[in-house]
Amino acid sequence: MSLEHYFIIDSTLREGEQFVNAFFTPEQKVEIAQMLDAFGVEYIEVTTPLASPQSEKDCRMLARLGLRAKVLTHVRCNLEDAKRAVDTGVQGVDLVIGTSSKLRQFSHHLTIDEIIDRAQEVLAFLSTQGVEMRFSTEDSLRSDPQDLFRIYEAVDQMGVHRVGIADTIGIGTPHQIYALVSALRQRIRADIEFHGHNDTGCAIANAYAALEAGATHVDTSVLGIGERNGITPLGGLIARLYGTSPQLVAKYNLPLLVHLDRRVAEIVGVDIPFNNYITGFAAFTHKAGIHAKAVLNDPSTYEVLRPEDFGLTRYIHVAHRLTGWNAIRHRAEQLGVNLSDEQIREITRQIKALADVQALTLDEVDRMLWQAHYHNLESNPTPLSSGGIA
Amino acid sequence: MSLEHYFIIDSTLREGEQFVNAFFTPEQKVEIAQMLDAFGVEYIEVTTPLASPQSEKDCRMLARLGLRAKVLTHVRCNLEDAKRAVDTGVQGVDLVIGTSSKLRQFSHHLTIDEIIDRAQEVLAFLSTQGVEMRFSTEDSLRSDPQDLFRIYEAVDQMGVHRVGIADTIGIGTPHQIYALVSALRQRIRADIEFHGHNDTGCAIANAYAALEAGATHVDTSVLGIGERNGITPLGGLIARLYGTSPQLVAKYNLPLLVHLDRRVAEIVGVDIPFNNYITGFAAFTHKAGIHAKAVLNDPSTYEVLRPEDFGLTRYIHVAHRLTGWNAIRHRAEQLGVNLSDEQIREITRQIKALADVQALTLDEVDRMLWQAHYHNLESNPTPLSSGGIA
Repeated sequence: MSLEHYFIIDSTLREGEQFVNAFFTPEQKVEIAQMLDAFGVEYIEVTTPLASPQSEKDCRMLARLGLRAKVLTHVRCNLEDAKRAVDTGVQGVDLVIGTSSKLRQFSHHLTIDEIIDRAQEVLAFLSTQGVEMRFSTEDSLRSDPQDLFRIYEAVDQMGVHRVGIADTIGIGTPHQIYALVSALRQRIRADIEFHGHNDTGCAIANAYAALEAGATHVDTSVLGIGERNGITPLGGLIARLYGTSPQLVAKYNLPLLVHLDRRVAEIVGVDIPFNNYITGFAAFTHKAGIHAKAVLNDPSTYEVLRPEDFGLTRYIHVAHRLTGWNAIRHRAEQLGVNLSDEQIREITRQIKALADVQALTLDEVDRMLWQAHYHNLESNPTPLSSGGIA
Repeated sequence: MSLEHYFIIDSTLREGEQFVNAFFTPEQKVEIAQMLDAFGVEYIEVTTPLASPQSEKDCRMLARLGLRAKVLTHVRCNLEDAKRAVDTGVQGVDLVIGTSSKLRQFSHHLTIDEIIDRAQEVLAFLSTQGVEMRFSTEDSLRSDPQDLFRIYEAVDQMGVHRVGIADTIGIGTPHQIYALVSALRQRIRADIEFHGHNDTGCAIANAYAALEAGATHVDTSVLGIGERNGITPLGGLIARLYGTSPQLVAKYNLPLLVHLDRRVAEIVGVDIPFNNYITGFAAFTHKAGIHAKAVLNDPSTYEVLRPEDFGLTRYIHVAHRLTGWNAIRHRAEQLGVNLSDEQIREITRQIKALADVQALTLDEVDRMLWQAHYHNLESNPTPLSSGGIA
């Protein structure tokens, strides 16, 4: 496991621009890049200058923004694209070419030898330009592994800094990614990057398996936005690494994550998914009585992620029929109302009966607790506790 | 790999009811159960009859609905709960007990020996009642594996039909799940069920790894709803299995998935996440020029899931600055407008220039194509092609 030394290449401004809803103005690109930089990602990948005139201007501007993160652009593996990329002033150039038989047939028409020749020509140029060089094979998972290894060994010999495994269609499983990256790790000395789409729900697990197998770099985007349903989400990768050990993500400014997710969601016109990692509204909610009881005693019983570490708070939902009397007692304590265990148990029975017929609000639960409290005071008047008067 | 023989236990009506927003009326429970049954899940798990009076009535009603799917209820491992469960007429009883030191300390206070004694008592009763019996350990991933194996071997001896591995807090990785299930597979003869939460983004990959390791049953819920951000989503598991081979999910009625997702989203008051597997609005969209060109030639170049198999359609987005002239040519053909390659290339340049400044709509692209078409007709009048007049 090489989990201690890994780098995030955030591609919100490249892959994310390929999300069907995305249109980023130059100002929004700067804002997103600066937020990502403040969060602490080590690289920011931006759209090729060949996409359009404004894309070229934006690439040039982002490359010269003076960020701590290195700015990369992602171009096809040919000399013209590489020259245009270098001319923008980026700190690194990410070359990509399809290697599966499908893409060789339908996208370009090169043989493996022709791909290697092309790579040689482009890398020979780039190696004189003082930029980080990455060479990546699109659709790696459906490529013949022997073809991949031939290409990667060749570009490794040419001095490429990093090679990329790309699960472009989101078909890989963690076992497959682990096996492929492990085999590659034995064969080359360059760093290894993983880029994974999420069509079959494994983009986070696959990125993690790649790191376990010796990959050094993972591509992400904010909320995972990208082609189709997107790639490994930045927040999801952070959640996974934190779940293994919070130390692994201590280098990032975690409370900025929620601001990144919210701002990018706003710009591309989507809601943060209700079940999103860390920042979805349900992420730190607890409901069933058994869960609520244990979490009130010790949150780690049912929480792998501490909301406080992300500048967020947990919510224990008590106003429903799956509630338990420990949760209701805790709510009474929060309100500063003083009731006997017997009273709490009776109120819990009443809550369950009411919530059985229709959805109940926390207000209604609070009212029942206050009523019992005032009833107690009337039957047996005592001064309010100091906690009650502030 | 035992992927050929697996069963889905859908827990929307149990785990899903623990989603913070969920309140299901009896009518809604029937509707969801019938849709799940029509989709083809083999089991439906419902809330314990001990949760509330209405929960008991609903459990009884669902158990007697005459579904093809077996109806299970999920109760704590004690004799009273088991008797109440059997009394509802369910076809199976899912017993659960916490085995991690955290849960043993904060939830109940039993030793491993006391847990085994408790299981013995409850299973002895259930085995006389003609129901399927499952025994599951909550928070299995943070339990001592030696404790787990002792308990599972004991209940296996007692004739339990199925044991459950539960990643209750969503901390497991595919490697860990694979190792745990593989080891368990060697030790017992009962079926093995996997239940995984999604806090760190691995619920789908973990369920898949469990099946690869010899598990036979996977818990899901519609949209993954459950405690916190939920569990393995039904649609996500389907996407993963289909990605390996469409044959693996041929037993299910796939076009019903989108209706299940939409209906449950409506009932619990959430939107289907934009990036949801299969049914999110972005799932079958293609944008970058290189992707669009290849997909127009052969969708499988960039699609692991065929939208047609789910009653859905793909959308190729062409009105943006990352577009390419192949995509624009295809759009012209869809409209039945007849333009030269040179004209298409010029219009593509114009589209990129316009879309570079602000978001562009498909309407505007279509207008440009029609204008060029009419301009051609005016310069060189010819009869409309038969395709153009219907």
